[in-house]
Amino acid sequence: MIFHINRRRRIFEGKGKVLFEGPEPGTLVQYFKDDTTARGSQKKGTVTGKGVLNNSISEFLMSRLNEIGVPTHFMRRLNMREQLVRQVEIIPIEVVVRNVAAGNFARSHRLKEGTLLPRSIVEFYYKLPDNDKASPQENPMVTDEHITAFGWANPYELDEMMAHALRINDYMSGLFLGIGLRLVDFRLEFGRLWDHEDIRIVLADELSPDNCRLWDIHTNEKMDKDRFFEDLGKVEEAYQEVARRLGILPPTAQIQEDGAENITAFQEKEEK
Amino acid sequence: MIFHINRRRRIFEGKGKVLFEGPEPGTLVQYFKDDTTARGSQKKGTVTGKGVLNNSISEFLMSRLNEIGVPTHFMRRLNMREQLVRQVEIIPIEVVVRNVAAGNFARSHRLKEGTLLPRSIVEFYYKLPDNDKASPQENPMVTDEHITAFGWANPYELDEMMAHALRINDYMSGLFLGIGLRLVDFRLEFGRLWDHEDIRIVLADELSPDNCRLWDIHTNEKMDKDRFFEDLGKVEEAYQEVARRLGILPPTAQIQEDGAENITAFQEKEEK
Repeated sequence: MIFHINRRRRIFEGKGKVLFEGPEPGTLVQYFKDDTTARGSQKKGTVTGKGVLNNSISEFLMSRLNEIGVPTHFMRRLNMREQLVRQVEIIPIEVVVRNVAAGNFARSHRLKEGTLLPRSIVEFYYKLPDNDKASPQENPMVTDEHITAFGWANPYELDEMMAHALRINDYMSGLFLGIGLRLVDFRLEFGRLWDHEDIRIVLADELSPDNCRLWDIHTNEKMDKDRFFEDLGKVEEAYQEVARRLGILPPTAQIQEDGAENITAFQEKEEK
Repeated sequence: MIFHINRRRRIFEGKGKVLFEGPEPGTLVQYFKDDTTARGSQKKGTVTGKGVLNNSISEFLMSRLNEIGVPTHFMRRLNMREQLVRQVEIIPIEVVVRNVAAGNFARSHRLKEGTLLPRSIVEFYYKLPDNDKASPQENPMVTDEHITAFGWANPYELDEMMAHALRINDYMSGLFLGIGLRLVDFRLEFGRLWDHEDIRIVLADELSPDNCRLWDIHTNEKMDKDRFFEDLGKVEEAYQEVARRLGILPPTAQIQEDGAENITAFQEKEEK
């Protein structure tokens, strides 16, 4: 039966996740790794248990977004490290929403980290298709001019991405404030989903401390991937604390026991 | 000096609040009473400390909305029962946003209370200008047809009210979920604010358990004005719990000591 498991086709492997062929046409299995990178893969490492936490955090946030009518690719969580998602055609644009100046943005705009922006700022970055993993380049910032001229997305799709990004910002800013965290900024990816004759633009990828900057409201402590990038330590503990405040922390014992390549739980579930 | 206090001109007295002339042109002082009513004044009562709690809850929520760029009339809290607000021309439309079926809406649509709606529903009600306090009528539901035909608001103003209401719903749904409460529905009022030559549409009135239905996520316990209307008891305790979860509960002692007609605190502050 080991052979059976290995038969599952690997569609794509990214920095923190692997996409496998799903159990039905039009679905994929998204597997969350513990691997982590920062600054376009310049710094690499592993955060034990991160994949398990991000799988649950992303499940929680995408489920809530589905409930309020923001469409996402998320269908259901399968096991500790995997979730079933709809297969979408990824739009090669990263949508970044910023509420507070941080990181590179603060440095390049000569703003003190932590400066509240006059209003939320939405940015687009082109995802380089052939980004060399050996010497990766940063994805370039682009505008609607570039996006529509090169046909990466049409004006309708861009409007949809913008509208979804702003709703997600409002909802998640409120939600994180409710659990004592400031949503500083975050990065989204969207995909095209064929719905009979129509194309719907839905949120894809993940929502977790890997792509959301989250600071404690009272202490300004960083509770996200910057802990890894800036060598602040206690990276796993910060992700756990976010999950705990959201009320979704899985038992610690299970996090430890769940091996990085353990995909049997999903197979068992599917075979029931 | 008692004479001085009485000189402050009373602009308007509503069910739960009094509006006084403010210290500068274009401002008003909004005073929160403990009086409460339900079903268009058919049932009346007093909830000790409610005014103090609503003043703080509304301050907190409107401040957060101002921060995310949803304009409101709120300027600052003056004392336990009063806040300084911008004088606006109230648009005679109540905007109701519903996420879950409750109350009259559930009954009249033959829905079980607690049914999640297929998507958020926005309704408009015309505020009867000469509503007879002795035998009050319910404000009638209206559509954009009535609103624009009678000139209560123009299409631009209606669009603004709708857009603000949906943003408020996204943000507050997230915020309340973060503190373990479901935002079932809520009622908003908007006003026109003259900004040089332009008119801006801003949120007016208040945001509190008096105009938001809030249910505990886990127990479905009602934490709002329905506790009064349905004789569930512990009305003040429910409002206190909402304030406590938002992290803004003022010391209990002060709530008890603050008399219903005590407006000296504001006068003292202004005279400093």
